[in-house]
Amino acid sequence: MHHHQLLYAGKSKQIYAADNPRQVIVHYKDDASAYGGIKRASIANKGICNNKIAGIVYQLLEQYGVRTHFIRRIGEREQLCFRKEKMIQLEFIVRNIASGSMSKRLNIKEGTEFAHPVCEICYKNDELGDPLINDDHAVALGLSTYDELYEVHNLVMTINDLLIRIFGQINVRLVDAKMEFGRLPNGVLVLADEISPDTARLWDLATLERMDRDRFRHDMGRVTEMYQEVLERLARVYKIE
Amino acid sequence: MHHHQLLYAGKSKQIYAADNPRQVIVHYKDDASAYGGIKRASIANKGICNNKIAGIVYQLLEQYGVRTHFIRRIGEREQLCFRKEKMIQLEFIVRNIASGSMSKRLNIKEGTEFAHPVCEICYKNDELGDPLINDDHAVALGLSTYDELYEVHNLVMTINDLLIRIFGQINVRLVDAKMEFGRLPNGVLVLADEISPDTARLWDLATLERMDRDRFRHDMGRVTEMYQEVLERLARVYKIE
Repeated sequence: MHHHQLLYAGKSKQIYAADNPRQVIVHYKDDASAYGGIKRASIANKGICNNKIAGIVYQLLEQYGVRTHFIRRIGEREQLCFRKEKMIQLEFIVRNIASGSMSKRLNIKEGTEFAHPVCEICYKNDELGDPLINDDHAVALGLSTYDELYEVHNLVMTINDLLIRIFGQINVRLVDAKMEFGRLPNGVLVLADEISPDTARLWDLATLERMDRDRFRHDMGRVTEMYQEVLERLARVYKIE
Repeated sequence: MHHHQLLYAGKSKQIYAADNPRQVIVHYKDDASAYGGIKRASIANKGICNNKIAGIVYQLLEQYGVRTHFIRRIGEREQLCFRKEKMIQLEFIVRNIASGSMSKRLNIKEGTEFAHPVCEICYKNDELGDPLINDDHAVALGLSTYDELYEVHNLVMTINDLLIRIFGQINVRLVDAKMEFGRLPNGVLVLADEISPDTARLWDLATLERMDRDRFRHDMGRVTEMYQEVLERLARVYKIE
């Protein structure tokens, strides 16, 4: 990677320039963080697992017609992705089951199933603590337009339905998922970032055992093992790498 | 009031049973509070001003076709209102200009005008601090339905347009306003609670001087005087009591 220019260093990923100016190389690190970066650690092989999990999930989503930034995996920790002309500076969180910040904030018992998925948007702004906002705020802040938000909200619901099926096939419940979106130079809206146990809550369908970053957040142990388990189930059932 | 049964005691108003079971008597107190009740005081004659201001504003809104719970003023501090079969446990806040909690939360300079009004909903729950939520949360919490929220959001925008005109005529800018809604036994949606300097931010059009509860929040002095000034302007221009 050393001959490629570092374009962006995030908490768990680095983005490098690729030879093709329309592409970037995304490098997955083992760095873990929680609570807005207050809690930090390194989780052995997490980067390898998430690179592979996100790759498989994005390939499956593409098969269902969802446009993503993923092109192909090019190393244990690297994947080639489309360069986004513009990233929408919002996090879209879709929740099927109450957990985490939403449970606490609204005093909803963890594990409560929603009849209709709850979609939240957060303003990606570390200084402000990624606050929950609504569509009007996003437009007032100049982060998006009503038309774009309508398009993205519909896409989020579609992707949520697909993820429920994709994870359901490996006996995993999709509790919630965070999504980020960008636009390619030709204007096409793509799912960016990653879908992995770092960004989605995944519970074993039978045991309800946590298979995601909550193991790290709440010091539940066996973090690598569970990320590995998600990867192995995906690879086994879908027979892709 | 002593022979009427107290039905509800709020921070700034009390609600009593009326002789007619379809009606209630709303009594406006001088009690002021801010920051979720942390800051409290009594503001001389505030209850008298707000009772009259809310009465005038609701009469004007009714003239424009908005259904409200207001029937008529029956005393210095009392107004007769329709009893609501059900109150929607949400606060609807419409913002034309950035101020207060929104400015702080999203780091938007106070006084910034929005091209499109920003509408927020908060879950009326003192223990949780009336948290900002979105439509999906409101439905998930069982507080409303998507259809009802659609109806109320439209009504909030209509009322905001009317309030901008109503206050504009007395040389006051409507910065933001909080609204609450309920349903009468026949299902009609009505604007409940009050519109007053306690629940709306009002700035003098020429001087930008604050004429609302921010004077109390930020210890700016002349609180009664400014509430009185809003009342006098309304009474003078609209010639109603």
